Amino acid sequence: MNYILKIACKDEPGLIYKISKILYENGLNIEKNSEFVDNENKRFFLRALLSGELNVDEIVNSLKKELPKNSYIYLTKKRKKKIVIMATKESHCLGDILLKHCSKEMNAEILAVISNYDKLRSLSEKFNIPYYFISHENLTRREHEDKILKILEKFDLDFIVLAKYMRILSSEFVKHYEERIINIHHSFLPAFIGANPYKQAYERGVKIIGATAHFVNDNLDEGPIITQDVIHVDHEYSWRDMQKAGRNVEKVVLSRALDLVFEDRIFVYANKTIIF
Amino acid sequence: MNYILKIACKDEPGLIYKISKILYENGLNIEKNSEFVDNENKRFFLRALLSGELNVDEIVNSLKKELPKNSYIYLTKKRKKKIVIMATKESHCLGDILLKHCSKEMNAEILAVISNYDKLRSLSEKFNIPYYFISHENLTRREHEDKILKILEKFDLDFIVLAKYMRILSSEFVKHYEERIINIHHSFLPAFIGANPYKQAYERGVKIIGATAHFVNDNLDEGPIITQDVIHVDHEYSWRDMQKAGRNVEKVVLSRALDLVFEDRIFVYANKTIIF
Amino acid sequence: MNYILKIACKDEPGLIYKISKILYENGLNIEKNSEFVDNENKRFFLRALLSGELNVDEIVNSLKKELPKNSYIYLTKKRKKKIVIMATKESHCLGDILLKHCSKEMNAEILAVISNYDKLRSLSEKFNIPYYFISHENLTRREHEDKILKILEKFDLDFIVLAKYMRILSSEFVKHYEERIINIHHSFLPAFIGANPYKQAYERGVKIIGATAHFVNDNLDEGPIITQDVIHVDHEYSWRDMQKAGRNVEKVVLSRALDLVFEDRIFVYANKTIIF
Amino acid sequence: MNYILKIACKDEPGLIYKISKILYENGLNIEKNSEFVDNENKRFFLRALLSGELNVDEIVNSLKKELPKNSYIYLTKKRKKKIVIMATKESHCLGDILLKHCSKEMNAEILAVISNYDKLRSLSEKFNIPYYFISHENLTRREHEDKILKILEKFDLDFIVLAKYMRILSSEFVKHYEERIINIHHSFLPAFIGANPYKQAYERGVKIIGATAHFVNDNLDEGPIITQDVIHVDHEYSWRDMQKAGRNVEKVVLSRALDLVFEDRIFVYANKTIIF
Repeated sequence: MNYILKIACKDEPGLIYKISKILYENGLNIEKNSEFVDNENKRFFLRALLSGELNVDEIVNSLKKELPKNSYIYLTKKRKKKIVIMATKESHCLGDILLKHCSKEMNAEILAVISNYDKLRSLSEKFNIPYYFISHENLTRREHEDKILKILEKFDLDFIVLAKYMRILSSEFVKHYEERIINIHHSFLPAFIGANPYKQAYERGVKIIGATAHFVNDNLDEGPIITQDVIHVDHEYSWRDMQKAGRNVEKVVLSRALDLVFEDRIFVYANKTIIF
Repeated sequence: MNYILKIACKDEPGLIYKISKILYENGLNIEKNSEFVDNENKRFFLRALLSGELNVDEIVNSLKKELPKNSYIYLTKKRKKKIVIMATKESHCLGDILLKHCSKEMNAEILAVISNYDKLRSLSEKFNIPYYFISHENLTRREHEDKILKILEKFDLDFIVLAKYMRILSSEFVKHYEERIINIHHSFLPAFIGANPYKQAYERGVKIIGATAHFVNDNLDEGPIITQDVIHVDHEYSWRDMQKAGRNVEKVVLSRALDLVFEDRIFVYANKTIIF
Repeated sequence: MNYILKIACKDEPGLIYKISKILYENGLNIEKNSEFVDNENKRFFLRALLSGELNVDEIVNSLKKELPKNSYIYLTKKRKKKIVIMATKESHCLGDILLKHCSKEMNAEILAVISNYDKLRSLSEKFNIPYYFISHENLTRREHEDKILKILEKFDLDFIVLAKYMRILSSEFVKHYEERIINIHHSFLPAFIGANPYKQAYERGVKIIGATAHFVNDNLDEGPIITQDVIHVDHEYSWRDMQKAGRNVEKVVLSRALDLVFEDRIFVYANKTIIF
Repeated sequence: MNYILKIACKDEPGLIYKISKILYENGLNIEKNSEFVDNENKRFFLRALLSGELNVDEIVNSLKKELPKNSYIYLTKKRKKKIVIMATKESHCLGDILLKHCSKEMNAEILAVISNYDKLRSLSEKFNIPYYFISHENLTRREHEDKILKILEKFDLDFIVLAKYMRILSSEFVKHYEERIINIHHSFLPAFIGANPYKQAYERGVKIIGATAHFVNDNLDEGPIITQDVIHVDHEYSWRDMQKAGRNVEKVVLSRALDLVFEDRIFVYANKTIIF
């Protein structure tokens, strides 16, 4: 049986010794082990892949006794994550996720797609994923989000993936799913904010366009960055060409971020990610 | 004999025909030809490499007669550009340029290095380049720039290369060398402005750092972009590691930009570059 | 109305003048124009985007009169290309093409999917594309290819896309569709040939894996290269991880190549591509 | 005081526990720790950065007692590596190393430059590095290498850097410095072997050129790969343009590899590298 152990705590001498002692004495094998010390914040991070038979509560309790107070200890069987995807009108990220899900390349089970338009229903239903169309028209943000929350609450979900969901989420909404909402953002933040960033980038004459996948916190588009990438463009690109090229980066960057999230490879601390 | 022809003018039907007719009737061979029409601004750009014997004034006059009013016509023998480098304390960009100059890989002749510190003298003089140390201490910006201008005026120079020159140039200074000053800028603009951008980038937890080479106009760091590139970083990078990695990108990006500039491959229009 | 003009011929003085004269005198506007002279082979290549009203035969005849003998002249209205996709068992490239086709991001119409397995039927039919399962079992290569050819002949097709079709095509087969079959190839040729190249790459300890999209000629995997790209890997990658990462590059590289092919942006000469 | 500990041994349960116990009981702090298990070869690799006061022999002996037989144990103070550079005629890699050495960005001390030509003397001596010109003319390979070995033996060196040294080294020579010679290789192996690989790549019409830095073993150009990278080229590149572009990749890839080597971040096993 395979387990994932994640620990984050105040750094102090002997942590690796204490942790590996408990694992060793419980007959667990460490298949893979990664550590990082954030020297600035004096904080220790460890992620291990364990094999063997274990009682989760017992191990967690043993660790708690040895580790500093308020340590973050996460121990779980390796398993598929349960996700809900939120989207608006664009299909490139949603389609890519559906395809990977369908060919079993994604360590996740898609429970539903929620959109504020009805445009992606046919795509979602091709892959037998339930589609919820929740229009935002004539609703306040609060009313719209409440409707979405009512659907989300039906699911025992691990993560929400914003696959080009083009509406701002309120702090209240985000608080329900802290560090559990992943977003993909066009271009480089905060360079070109607001409507039509590709047009802004075009007008600035950039030679590179990029995408950023990040966790959502209450500060729009400012959450902890997971992955970023870019492609080169030149003067022959209209802003629509940039947007088209941008879509390719967006879907690749989001896909890489999701792989990392679904394998429990990420820690969030001080608005940054540590990725093993 | 090899010549470079650059034309920029209002777009209208028949431009290529009219231009190629003149070249053909003057017995010139077009070795390489690039065109671009900026459809948004209705503007036509052409760069051609010509071989044959020609009288520059005659060809330019013939072109003037056929082309729209106020056309930009640039016709010159292929030749090494004359440059002055301005730097401050960091040696990575300056050193890279000096090396390429020394191994004859750069289509330019370095006339001088000017710095507001005396730190790079030994490096410059290793390569037999005259070094001018013009401290900015106890001087107003105007006084300091006047001193620099006095030196620059001694040279018949084509371009000024800011190889990590860390002081802001005034509009007045820039006006003397419009579209002739090339700068290399850390990171992505305008994401992290001001002091220590690498520290800002580190604190934001970026996964990519980059560099931008651009022409300098009177709006600091906002001039037409020539080249950009990035490298990937991760949570193990301290801000000093990012800075070190950034230096490698900076020197490569500046080097590529200079190759393009020195080969007359760039047009500037509407604060953007067209690069052939 | 928009047209694409492609010319390839022996290089000689005045070609651009002669061509642009004909276009100008026929009232055609050159929206975009690209030229290249292969100095080694003394060969001239031109691709232009024309707008205006024209009679294709008239223009081609006028050009024929002015251009060297045996010139390649291609003039056509801009239009969607008609394609047939051949695949085997892997879905990543096929799925990516189907998605882009579905969201109208691909300048092509998919007529059919042909496979030597029945595994991709459900995926193809989700997107309403006819699926032909032609098993190769108990058939000679010739017999198998004849069966495929019989299906292909039913279609008025422009290109065949090998989206991870894992069987070698005979010279006879290829001759039917010269410069009209596009393939995507794992890794870098000819570094790791034969079965399981990712395992070979893993055993060699490579730090980069890549993909190559190319036209198929009768020399297996040696046809003219269209696009290539790579991603970085490290010692943590098993060969299966490499294969998974490789799939992402493969689909992106093939997708870029298809965009170029379907927009008539490629010339093939001397087993190389010139791409405008 | 800072130390680097590297361990490689047969994988078995409890290794991390046993190692961290010894370190903890000796009052050493683990500043950074990386592990990797090669599951295929059942081999364990660990690299740790230690701070504290220690007696190297004592710690190594304690580790030896606890670890499997024949374990590789390397424990050393952090220190600059001593290197000799071998080159031929091209200056780009040598120059880059000299510059980084001069600006103190390289964790190494350059003891000498050895070349089979006299061409790089002036460059080396600009930076005050002793230059040994050992012509290979009229000498057998053995005689030439013996002359070089005689010089090398004068130095207490850690690594030999082949900065575009264009002669094949014999197995005998290599055996003197096993896993201590680093080479930079044009292009991708074994794609284009032999004279003028850039010309071969040009003729093949590649769209990517690359460089590989690797340790030298007795199988020419087949040693363990350290770093690789590529850049994109197109049909406008002559083979000389490719070579020029290739030089930029070569120097960057070699520079990255040297950083890793000089920081003791590399293990070699089964002709591959594990890099922490």
